[in-house]
Amino acid sequence: MSESRAPFRRVSVTRVGRSGAGQGEDFAATEEPLEVRLHGKPFAVIMRTPGSDRELAAGFLLSESIIRSLDDLGAVEHCRHPDHPEVHNIVDVFLVGKAAERLDEHLEQRRNILTSSSCGLCGRVTIDSLRLCASALAIGGHMTSAVAAELPQTLRDRQAVFDETGGLHAAALFTLNGECEESAEDVGRHNAVDKVIGSMVLDGRTPLGDRALLVSGRASFEIVQKAWLGGVPIVCAVSAPSSLAIELAHEAGITLLGFVRNGGFNLYTHAQRIEGV
Amino acid sequence: MSESRAPFRRVSVTRVGRSGAGQGEDFAATEEPLEVRLHGKPFAVIMRTPGSDRELAAGFLLSESIIRSLDDLGAVEHCRHPDHPEVHNIVDVFLVGKAAERLDEHLEQRRNILTSSSCGLCGRVTIDSLRLCASALAIGGHMTSAVAAELPQTLRDRQAVFDETGGLHAAALFTLNGECEESAEDVGRHNAVDKVIGSMVLDGRTPLGDRALLVSGRASFEIVQKAWLGGVPIVCAVSAPSSLAIELAHEAGITLLGFVRNGGFNLYTHAQRIEGV
Repeated sequence: MSESRAPFRRVSVTRVGRSGAGQGEDFAATEEPLEVRLHGKPFAVIMRTPGSDRELAAGFLLSESIIRSLDDLGAVEHCRHPDHPEVHNIVDVFLVGKAAERLDEHLEQRRNILTSSSCGLCGRVTIDSLRLCASALAIGGHMTSAVAAELPQTLRDRQAVFDETGGLHAAALFTLNGECEESAEDVGRHNAVDKVIGSMVLDGRTPLGDRALLVSGRASFEIVQKAWLGGVPIVCAVSAPSSLAIELAHEAGITLLGFVRNGGFNLYTHAQRIEGV
Repeated sequence: MSESRAPFRRVSVTRVGRSGAGQGEDFAATEEPLEVRLHGKPFAVIMRTPGSDRELAAGFLLSESIIRSLDDLGAVEHCRHPDHPEVHNIVDVFLVGKAAERLDEHLEQRRNILTSSSCGLCGRVTIDSLRLCASALAIGGHMTSAVAAELPQTLRDRQAVFDETGGLHAAALFTLNGECEESAEDVGRHNAVDKVIGSMVLDGRTPLGDRALLVSGRASFEIVQKAWLGGVPIVCAVSAPSSLAIELAHEAGITLLGFVRNGGFNLYTHAQRIEGV
């Protein structure tokens, strides 16, 4: 349990560079769901790095206009139950005063969302529902490590706006030969991913077997989840993946590459799809 | 209207460096809300960069498990109404088949959320409600430009985990003298902000007058909104602010600094709080 509370985790990795591949270890930032309860009832789930959970819950409730100050807070506590291994991922909040009077209203807002979203993000799912997504992806075709290492340069060549502002994320879909089929930019990395996968939906081309998704920046749980729902078997990130991104990729049968830069990458899961490793 | 659809916008900026300050222009990535409607009824609002809106809507609905493929989509269209200046920020989706049969269920999930959240993010607010937040912040105390330029180094000194994984965002609250009062790290930048502001909530120290919030990476609408709700008058980002972050800071009376690095920064709004500019 102490391991799961640490802000980073040791993960196994295959490091691929110009001179070959080797096994090693890396650290991934821990990402886990935190369920925020109001008076014992599920209110929201936030994907977060463990630590300062009570503070996160208080700040989140302020942002959501559920509370206005400490005056509205009776208690903010981690759940304690010896039989439940995930209690450190649940914070129960008790409201007082006017905030408490609106408790039923707040819970009603969230009730339907929490019980019907099978897989989601941004505080709209319960912890238990996070793993109820689609079935694992088949292995299918292969991509060479040389092609994989070049994907960011191809994306960069298409990323006109990024150079202007330094403020946009990008996402792109590639064939296994490294041909870029779709790319999109957005202030939100998750939006850029929705745009490229959505474009394929509108073309009637989903599920997307034999494709690789590349994202600028980091790979979180959410990015891997979107790839999974779109049927994309390979996910590449220019920067680091989170711990939960790695775990979800492992479960989903997705090949996950991180730090795809300088002619190499780190390979975290399902290496079978990458040739030359 | 064409201006608002562009992926970036020209903004005025005061560039502050070691040798002094000067007026100039910069480009900011455009951030605007996109309202996704199902059969004409509000379903979700996504903060995004304009462009590929139909694709974004389709990909978002796939991620939310509302649709599974093109077979579930009848039409995906921008609203067209000559009297409404924001129609380019509304996409209407018509479902068919089994997805359409579940329409009422999907809308019911969202109804209460959409009508009661006064200010929020992540598809939980309507466009019209985005500007109904708290009143503008008073000017209050000042911070020198030398102190402001040093904030990232102070934050970096406390950011132990970032150095291990390259995978975490950080946020911190400083006094106007540059003393770091709180810092937090998380896979999500918004979570790091919730953690530091939430910590002050739990200490009964909100609203946070005479403080500066520093975030690693970019400043989006959401970050400025969280500062506003916490009463923080100065927001500093190590990287670029979005267009809507700048607009919201202007409205809220918040002093917004971007690209705080290498001994300088860009000053976007309410320069009165920064001395030596």
